[in-house]
Amino acid sequence: MISQFFHADLAPRTWRRIAAVVVVAFGALAGAVQADTVSTFKLDNGMDVVVIEDHRAPVVVHMVWYKIGAADESPGHSGIAHFLEHLMFQGTKEVAPGALSKIVAAQGGSDNAFTTQDYTAYFQRVASDRLGLVMKLEADRMHNLDLSQKNVDTERQVILDERNQRVDSDPGALFNEQMDAAQYLNQPYGIPVIGWRHEMEKLSRQDALDFYQANYAPNNAILVVAGDVKPDEVLALAKQYYGPIPPSDKIHPRVRPTEPPQLAERRLTMSDPRVAQPFVVRTYLAPQRHPGDQKEAAALTMLAQLLGGNRATSVMPKALEFDQKIATYTSASYDGLSMDATTFGLAAVPADGVSLGDLEKAMDAVLAKFLKDGVDPAEFARIKAQVAAQQIYDRDNTQGLAHQYGMALASGLSVKDVQDWPAALQAVTPDEVVAEARKVLDRRHSVTGWLTAEEAQQ
Amino acid sequence: MISQFFHADLAPRTWRRIAAVVVVAFGALAGAVQADTVSTFKLDNGMDVVVIEDHRAPVVVHMVWYKIGAADESPGHSGIAHFLEHLMFQGTKEVAPGALSKIVAAQGGSDNAFTTQDYTAYFQRVASDRLGLVMKLEADRMHNLDLSQKNVDTERQVILDERNQRVDSDPGALFNEQMDAAQYLNQPYGIPVIGWRHEMEKLSRQDALDFYQANYAPNNAILVVAGDVKPDEVLALAKQYYGPIPPSDKIHPRVRPTEPPQLAERRLTMSDPRVAQPFVVRTYLAPQRHPGDQKEAAALTMLAQLLGGNRATSVMPKALEFDQKIATYTSASYDGLSMDATTFGLAAVPADGVSLGDLEKAMDAVLAKFLKDGVDPAEFARIKAQVAAQQIYDRDNTQGLAHQYGMALASGLSVKDVQDWPAALQAVTPDEVVAEARKVLDRRHSVTGWLTAEEAQQ
Repeated sequence: MISQFFHADLAPRTWRRIAAVVVVAFGALAGAVQADTVSTFKLDNGMDVVVIEDHRAPVVVHMVWYKIGAADESPGHSGIAHFLEHLMFQGTKEVAPGALSKIVAAQGGSDNAFTTQDYTAYFQRVASDRLGLVMKLEADRMHNLDLSQKNVDTERQVILDERNQRVDSDPGALFNEQMDAAQYLNQPYGIPVIGWRHEMEKLSRQDALDFYQANYAPNNAILVVAGDVKPDEVLALAKQYYGPIPPSDKIHPRVRPTEPPQLAERRLTMSDPRVAQPFVVRTYLAPQRHPGDQKEAAALTMLAQLLGGNRATSVMPKALEFDQKIATYTSASYDGLSMDATTFGLAAVPADGVSLGDLEKAMDAVLAKFLKDGVDPAEFARIKAQVAAQQIYDRDNTQGLAHQYGMALASGLSVKDVQDWPAALQAVTPDEVVAEARKVLDRRHSVTGWLTAEEAQQ
Repeated sequence: MISQFFHADLAPRTWRRIAAVVVVAFGALAGAVQADTVSTFKLDNGMDVVVIEDHRAPVVVHMVWYKIGAADESPGHSGIAHFLEHLMFQGTKEVAPGALSKIVAAQGGSDNAFTTQDYTAYFQRVASDRLGLVMKLEADRMHNLDLSQKNVDTERQVILDERNQRVDSDPGALFNEQMDAAQYLNQPYGIPVIGWRHEMEKLSRQDALDFYQANYAPNNAILVVAGDVKPDEVLALAKQYYGPIPPSDKIHPRVRPTEPPQLAERRLTMSDPRVAQPFVVRTYLAPQRHPGDQKEAAALTMLAQLLGGNRATSVMPKALEFDQKIATYTSASYDGLSMDATTFGLAAVPADGVSLGDLEKAMDAVLAKFLKDGVDPAEFARIKAQVAAQQIYDRDNTQGLAHQYGMALASGLSVKDVQDWPAALQAVTPDEVVAEARKVLDRRHSVTGWLTAEEAQQ
């Protein structure tokens, strides 16, 4: 339940085939960690290549990231990006339906894929001497996908079942969908990655093939290879397997509808008898990490940490959980990695006998006090150290690092943006945090949602 | 101010170059009025032709309705349908920019055009012997539009100024935009016909030409001619002028995104110091007149009349204005003529000293009482007579009738649907009204908006 709040922003816009895959398991800090050993190339057909070396174990992670996500779908076809991701496992002329995963597993490896609003990614983790094999398989399905009507129909039922299980049977997930739809007046982020059921039901083989042919090509893809490999070996293999695939002339710059001025605060209430624990969520429209300009996003990242990052010392849990004892859980969340404007989220679960209205008032009072008093210098220093430590941990996790590069590059950022990010976070000043908070925490740009078991009136 | 409420549903989705044009001026009832004298044809190139005879005066109204509106725009190009409507006055190889209107005026006629979510229409009113002339002009710009970059740039400034005047300087219009954006989770009706400013600024000559070439063709148009004309003469002229225009192979069935289940009541508050009079509006998602099935829409039309149609006897004004004296104005509005799901709207202006919260509670209590008590038979009979009389008046107005046929046919209804509508209204029973009210007045499908001068908290 708690992870749902914490990922309130991320969850509804990310659709993973297996959620656990991207939960980065932080290893022990392995002494002094060097700066990333990252090499980049571009193939003649426009495919970007990123290699991250880590020779501690003889394994490699091979990822292909397509710069296409659910927010790029055409109106009325919600879910097609994720549907196609499923169908990418349905084979080619060379590889039978479902065989790719079996081949990888037979080599002792694992594979998976996921779709978000901004990108679609496929990856395998194998022994490093099997890199050529997985490249061959991935390159094959980049341009040889072969879909039978029967397999399309079967897989459509799979994604409908997936929607049933993960959304329709979960009031919290339905609530997130309704919140997102209210948050975005124009941007496609208001439409769920999994798709609206009535549109998913109509997705056809031709829709999938059209989406595939328009978007899957080397000049719309990023290859990320991380692990026990040498950059020149990876480049040679990439040239061998991906090099022969012709670029597509259908790839255009990604320009998606953006928000008009949001002038009116929105509120919504969802009541569902299945709700075990009512809560209140507030999301504010917030800027993303812009290519070459991550200052605002860095300040918002620190703001989320200050408000909710630490269970004992952060502003919201301290005031609402420990001092006033009117909440049993609070959170502040922000993830700036997004092609277009994203959200800054707050959530709170009331203690027994506390109404959502009273809890929300108290939450707003805490925010107002924070804006007035400013940042506690000791807390700010602690959080900066925490963030720095976290980034060292992150760097030590090669698969997590590969994921960071892939997400960033597929979202329009550069390798330099990724590498500048830790310094951008460390450069944030308390005044910048407060200035950004004043700008972003504007209720005209917000949606406040109550999820309750019984009908409640705001 | 009042018309704004009354047309709360219609206004934001309709964009007229001159609003007065479509305000039907009801003439005196001219004795017994016959059933419409309506003839229909289809040209070989797919263009529909509707002729409405009225020989009382030697004038004719000539209209071309394109089955394309703002809700058919591609994402990120809001306003292009209306922009193109403006550009259609910018000339062809034969007719100089602005000359069409001058030619019509020189003949003592008038012309105009308007764009809604569902259609775009162009029309002229001239002496009936000038019908051939206006057909020649209209047919010419259907396929010979010639746009200079300079004229496109000038006209873009015109539509931006139009947005400034009609929306950005009017808190009520801005409020309507925010309400619509919150009402529709998926349907494009949430995007304003005039366009979002930041998207209008980028509309290019090529965008306009693409939209024109994809959508302006005889097989996507309806010709409506009403007045002192004979059907066979109109058909002969239509064949002469429109007949030679080839049909387009780019015209596809109109399938637009529709709503997913709306599960959470939404509320919004907009505060603007320019607001002279605060008010509360509630809109509920509501079904439209479906081709061949107008029963629900008929019941909702009667419901709007019962709740707010008569200043003295209807449910809302009677309870809130006259009995409780807490409102100075109330309204209920519904217009079923829409391609996709539309809204049922309620509005109320508080009396001095009454809060919006109290007024809204009282409005909900009135609705609850109506659902419990049901329809007053005497009031229902009075309204049925009123509706019947209105329709006789409407039929007597040839231009209004032409407009009714054009709107309906361009929205996907048939001539038969138009002709069945009066009987459908008369066939509604009190039980059907209450059943439909119970179904539609579901707050999970609604948006409640407060417009205030000062910051108010719901």
